Amino acid sequence: MKIITVSREFGSGGRELGKRLADVLGFGYYDKEIITAIAANKGLDERYVEKALDSNYVQTFSFTYGNTFGVIPSLQAQKTELFLEQKRVIEKIGQAGKDCVIVGRNADVILKEFNPFNIFVCADMEAKIRRCAARAPEGENLSRKQIIKNIKSIDKSRAQIREFMADSKWGSSSTYHLTVNTTDWNIKELSLVLAEFIQCWYKRSKNS
Amino acid sequence: MKIITVSREFGSGGRELGKRLADVLGFGYYDKEIITAIAANKGLDERYVEKALDSNYVQTFSFTYGNTFGVIPSLQAQKTELFLEQKRVIEKIGQAGKDCVIVGRNADVILKEFNPFNIFVCADMEAKIRRCAARAPEGENLSRKQIIKNIKSIDKSRAQIREFMADSKWGSSSTYHLTVNTTDWNIKELSLVLAEFIQCWYKRSKNS
Repeated sequence: MKIITVSREFGSGGRELGKRLADVLGFGYYDKEIITAIAANKGLDERYVEKALDSNYVQTFSFTYGNTFGVIPSLQAQKTELFLEQKRVIEKIGQAGKDCVIVGRNADVILKEFNPFNIFVCADMEAKIRRCAARAPEGENLSRKQIIKNIKSIDKSRAQIREFMADSKWGSSSTYHLTVNTTDWNIKELSLVLAEFIQCWYKRSKNS
Repeated sequence: MKIITVSREFGSGGRELGKRLADVLGFGYYDKEIITAIAANKGLDERYVEKALDSNYVQTFSFTYGNTFGVIPSLQAQKTELFLEQKRVIEKIGQAGKDCVIVGRNADVILKEFNPFNIFVCADMEAKIRRCAARAPEGENLSRKQIIKNIKSIDKSRAQIREFMADSKWGSSSTYHLTVNTTDWNIKELSLVLAEFIQCWYKRSKNS
């Protein structure tokens, strides 16, 4: 079984790259599908689950478990439960034993025992701003300053969640097998050459 | 003209990878050749030049230029001059206009205007320890603890020199086009697939 995990800076094109990689390699692809599974398992609305998981987990967790003398607010407890359910859903994907690509959600940490190939996707800030602006929903017209603020805030949250789950650092070189800067790339073209690279890794590495 | 720069953690196999990449691509290769040129230009012994450039430059520089009220020690001044000569030698390599691979020496910063493809090579600490132990000169029998200390000390010095020269961080993902972890790789095999990756980048990127 081959699992590829894609961690990414917000706005770097990591999601598109993961999807395209799965297509090129003929692998399964998991991203929003994980949200759908959590929502179904918990009987909750998908949009609510997505929003809850996107919020700052560390803050949530500290608040929930640090506050031993007070009453645990039910909303915070539910968020923690959603993170645990996400972990279970991802573990099940690994146990299913099918070749797949998983984007985000610290799948590289959760599925460590399956020896995934872990990619980190980054880009220069200007490229990320362009991508965010181009992909904004109709009607949304954020200033450049606001886009930068969003990118930094989301990445900070991702880094914190990771630090909470593992001793390796989010975005740090040796945490991943390969770190690719998408700035100069067309993502479709990148996915093709990256697929070749990964196939070589599986053929040649000691873990294969 | 195509320039590939290889920055690397000590013990990661970056030098071997750079040499092999140059061979596979049919590019020129510069590493020790730079030392030879500096030594020749300055009429100094190669071993002396190498040792001087390997020492902590930031400390050297601060000592030389920070100490405005004292006498500048000639040894420190000479080290600074060697770093400047190294910069000139690397600039000349860029101006020569030939396809080449340059390992280390902040060539990615010095040759920025030539749009080089910049690689960072890293590895897990255990892999780096193994590589250092296997490549130790005969008779050298450092303890594991001493090897780790050396690796960290050399990498710290490399990071400091870079920080001194540029606002981008040594080893930080978005500073490079590609960051590769050599832990699971045979370097020869890696050089083949990496050469393909780089050729695609040159064919497809906006900078080509």
